[in-house]
Amino acid sequence: MTASLQDLARLVRYYILISTTEAGTGHPTSSLSAVDLTTALFFKYLKADLDRPEHPNNDRVIFSKGHAAPLLYALYGAAGVLTESELKSLRKLGSPLQGHPTPQFRYAEAATGSLGQGLSIGVGMALNGKNLDQLPYRTYVLLGDGEMAEGSVWEAAQIASYYKLDNLIAIVDVNRLGQSQETMYGHDTEAYSKRLAAFGWDVVTIDGHSLPEIEKAFEQCFAVNGRPKVIVAKTLKGAGVSFLADKAGWHGKALSAADLEKALKELGPVDTKLKGSVQKPEDKKPATTAPVDVPPPAYKKGDAVATRKAYGMALARLIDKYPNLVSIDAETKNSTFAEILMEKKKDHYFEMFIAEQNMIGVGVGFARRGKVPFASTFAAFLTRAYDQIRMAAVSEANLKCVGSHVGVSIGEDGPSQMGLEDIAMFRAVHGSTVLYPSDAVSTEYLVEELIKTSGIGYLRTSRPATPVLYDVGEKFPVGGSKVLRSSAKDRLTLVAAGVTLHESLKAADQLSKDGLAVRVIDCYSVKPIDAATLRKAAEETKLMMVVEDHWEEGGLGDAVLSALAEKPVASVVKVAVRIMPGSGKPEELVEQAGLSAAALIRKIKEILK
Amino acid sequence: MTASLQDLARLVRYYILISTTEAGTGHPTSSLSAVDLTTALFFKYLKADLDRPEHPNNDRVIFSKGHAAPLLYALYGAAGVLTESELKSLRKLGSPLQGHPTPQFRYAEAATGSLGQGLSIGVGMALNGKNLDQLPYRTYVLLGDGEMAEGSVWEAAQIASYYKLDNLIAIVDVNRLGQSQETMYGHDTEAYSKRLAAFGWDVVTIDGHSLPEIEKAFEQCFAVNGRPKVIVAKTLKGAGVSFLADKAGWHGKALSAADLEKALKELGPVDTKLKGSVQKPEDKKPATTAPVDVPPPAYKKGDAVATRKAYGMALARLIDKYPNLVSIDAETKNSTFAEILMEKKKDHYFEMFIAEQNMIGVGVGFARRGKVPFASTFAAFLTRAYDQIRMAAVSEANLKCVGSHVGVSIGEDGPSQMGLEDIAMFRAVHGSTVLYPSDAVSTEYLVEELIKTSGIGYLRTSRPATPVLYDVGEKFPVGGSKVLRSSAKDRLTLVAAGVTLHESLKAADQLSKDGLAVRVIDCYSVKPIDAATLRKAAEETKLMMVVEDHWEEGGLGDAVLSALAEKPVASVVKVAVRIMPGSGKPEELVEQAGLSAAALIRKIKEILK
Repeated sequence: MTASLQDLARLVRYYILISTTEAGTGHPTSSLSAVDLTTALFFKYLKADLDRPEHPNNDRVIFSKGHAAPLLYALYGAAGVLTESELKSLRKLGSPLQGHPTPQFRYAEAATGSLGQGLSIGVGMALNGKNLDQLPYRTYVLLGDGEMAEGSVWEAAQIASYYKLDNLIAIVDVNRLGQSQETMYGHDTEAYSKRLAAFGWDVVTIDGHSLPEIEKAFEQCFAVNGRPKVIVAKTLKGAGVSFLADKAGWHGKALSAADLEKALKELGPVDTKLKGSVQKPEDKKPATTAPVDVPPPAYKKGDAVATRKAYGMALARLIDKYPNLVSIDAETKNSTFAEILMEKKKDHYFEMFIAEQNMIGVGVGFARRGKVPFASTFAAFLTRAYDQIRMAAVSEANLKCVGSHVGVSIGEDGPSQMGLEDIAMFRAVHGSTVLYPSDAVSTEYLVEELIKTSGIGYLRTSRPATPVLYDVGEKFPVGGSKVLRSSAKDRLTLVAAGVTLHESLKAADQLSKDGLAVRVIDCYSVKPIDAATLRKAAEETKLMMVVEDHWEEGGLGDAVLSALAEKPVASVVKVAVRIMPGSGKPEELVEQAGLSAAALIRKIKEILK
Repeated sequence: MTASLQDLARLVRYYILISTTEAGTGHPTSSLSAVDLTTALFFKYLKADLDRPEHPNNDRVIFSKGHAAPLLYALYGAAGVLTESELKSLRKLGSPLQGHPTPQFRYAEAATGSLGQGLSIGVGMALNGKNLDQLPYRTYVLLGDGEMAEGSVWEAAQIASYYKLDNLIAIVDVNRLGQSQETMYGHDTEAYSKRLAAFGWDVVTIDGHSLPEIEKAFEQCFAVNGRPKVIVAKTLKGAGVSFLADKAGWHGKALSAADLEKALKELGPVDTKLKGSVQKPEDKKPATTAPVDVPPPAYKKGDAVATRKAYGMALARLIDKYPNLVSIDAETKNSTFAEILMEKKKDHYFEMFIAEQNMIGVGVGFARRGKVPFASTFAAFLTRAYDQIRMAAVSEANLKCVGSHVGVSIGEDGPSQMGLEDIAMFRAVHGSTVLYPSDAVSTEYLVEELIKTSGIGYLRTSRPATPVLYDVGEKFPVGGSKVLRSSAKDRLTLVAAGVTLHESLKAADQLSKDGLAVRVIDCYSVKPIDAATLRKAAEETKLMMVVEDHWEEGGLGDAVLSALAEKPVASVVKVAVRIMPGSGKPEELVEQAGLSAAALIRKIKEILK
């Protein structure tokens, strides 16, 4: 006999309550409000092979309200794939059942818990299903009412309707109560419904505790084509337990043993032998393209090519070899040169418009479905999505970010458009790879290195055209560097990348004519950094100058210092941007910031005199 | 005779065209689309004393579409306060007329240019006018259609309607064309109007080149009470010049000399002697409260008090001395303890709900109107607003950010809630002050230091209760530190702050019993850092260990290295979080990350053996 949804919902509530009380911490009430909605979803509509969470045909379920993790785990408990004792490991050291979902839990599609990010991830997964894999899976996203205040939700909402994602179904759990007070709209579900309708969604507004209404709502969602769908559900936080339901003061609090006993009594007997069954999905193969070899990049030494342009060239060249590449951009594709990929392979480019947070979330969605997304915009504007990038690392997403227009060398547009903190930002992302090419050849190879290196990757590209420095045969491994000027008589080492490398080379060549030997290192791999080469140079020259078009904090200078920290053998001078730049010609601003060859020569002569 | 709006609009167009062509760069077409809208605003409705841009009764005008800076400058040119030759300094080195508005231009209310931020700043200014200064000034915000894709705009929109800001008037310049392609909705003004109406705004939809429609729209706005108002205007990018108007391919391009000649011919003769007059505002005094002395903080050494709680206590204590203090929080006030201020002085607390980007923008608005806003949430979630924080520095805003729940020591909630990159992020903000107290007394004094230190300030607070270390009489100047353990025999210096300071003290005391002397420095001022004290310790002990509950990049460790860089005399070991933490008890996670006293003792013994 099939278990009834009512019985399963009661079991799910039981698991939520016992696991949070066992943990002594967690969010039982925020979980309880969505029990009926998700129990109906899981055990009547969801199609997923629970033995194969990675199955490409599985429907995807994202808990954007990540603090409802006890509910997520409880649902899998009710489905029979987690035991009661496993559920009771909630929030304990080493348990995959963390306070908020992470990939440590095998059924979590992504890490959530920083609110307002799940819908973007869902958009990425839905876009992947519809446009890339061409599979009929659906993507479900559970949102809390509180997180609807996050702008990123509305960025995702607009893109979902722009791309007509009718395979995306959102559920908004309007339980009225936030962390410290009532939400902006309380139980006024209409406030959400009319906003979502205005954003192009098909909306069903229901009582989120009425199973007949819930079932009708899902069925209405399945009947609509051409638009994303949302179920806006009025619920009670803590629903199912009278002394919790719709009561303030219970956010993020586990019940005491005594309260638990009271709650369980009220819940009535549950059958822990009960097992809800989840439908299996179809077994359709995703659409794929076979990889083919591609020619090496073609540039001549000395040609002037901006690294941002080489980035676009690289994507377009490499997509045949790596058919899982996807390019997304925040309406800057003619500046970042993502447009070169778009022009070559339109169906692997997705315009994300001026909404960087959602762009990164969509990238996480693609990455978690096996694609290699490159998300590009001005480096300055990637700061907009730092929370999403940080969370992408928790999601273990294989996401590549590309920031163009870095530093004062962009010129006239002024400080709002200058990426001056991007290295600091990406260095402090767990497990990140931070690469900063100085010419077209290294850019091309470093793009491929990023594809081959899993995790969060960052490529820093520059606006100005700079001369090609390397032969096409050169290798650029992650963690490497290139010593471009070197002699036994070097009295100082210049460490640089991007425009400052070119200034450093000019300075070294001029100083060499004046009889002063200076080593120059192209430090294209900022993280991991080539500690061995830097140490050797430090030991041999005893004096280093790290030159970067970035604020003085957290950038290449700090990375070099960090590499030398435990055995410091050289004095290290950081040359970086220290005053707020304005508008001006690139060369004027580079000079003003003390990053020009002339400025470096003056500084070196002063130090060495 | 008063100049007609038509003649003034023609003059404004002339200034836009000649200034951008003179610069050889810039955004003439994005400026031209909004000429008629803003000319009517400036010369018929705006109330501002142009001799006193700081006048508290002036209406505020914010160009959220900052790339329309040439229009902003041209309007002031037409108002007679900028000469043609000054206008021609656009985008030149040292000119206050930068590519995007910054406070270098005396009439700019804030820096813009990173899109989608202006409405939040406007919300801050409107809230200030209505609720704090209680002045009748209006705040006008010009937005582009492209930037309506930014979620932060919708965060601002919902808060404006929540606070019934009927002194706020937005103008959306729907010119259809973005940077690289058409916007999501092209000329479908209804798409914007219905969304804004759903978000609670009073909407007028018009032809943005019809002066009668524009005038009617403003007058309709003034007639509505209790809601923010928006004029959604269909315009042509490049309007007024036939070969530019509504044509793709002209984004961000100045006209050549030949094209300029053609354009000016078409524009017809302009009278550069024409001067538009702007109405003067009333002369009402802002509501103020006289400052009164407050008692010092009251804690006893050894009491267990979380620094986050001391932060709330400090705000509540100091508001009488600094009546310009304002507290804003992203629905975490019972965690950050901003609620202590709210409970004491409700009208100086503004709930910003779960929308961090808008919270920071609102803070910039308050700051630019002379308030000292403290914006608080979990440190992890401040990453959400990094772009706004970066831009706040360009705005020269006196904004204070407070991030609670830092590091692994928060425990069970897991990595999504742990601030592990906040120091890296805030160090790399221009002119920032980064403070990291370890006990309640220093927290209280550091809050006051932040009030007294202009610019972007950051206070890092912790979740766990920790013992009070200092007497209430102690001083904590910015740029200082405290040497808490010291002897002539010290063989190593531990540098720490927050929970790791307490672990370091325990480690040093234990090691001291074992006969091993270790110095301990409370490095409460991360930026600026106390280089002299660190250098002395480095020279005397030759070995330092920097211990921080933060990723290893960009944090306290890098700050210490940077302070010692030019004369490295000690080996510096960074002890920081290196693996992705999960859930667990705070003490388990601190131990797992190698930050516990026991772990430090093991590491120190190993190094010194």
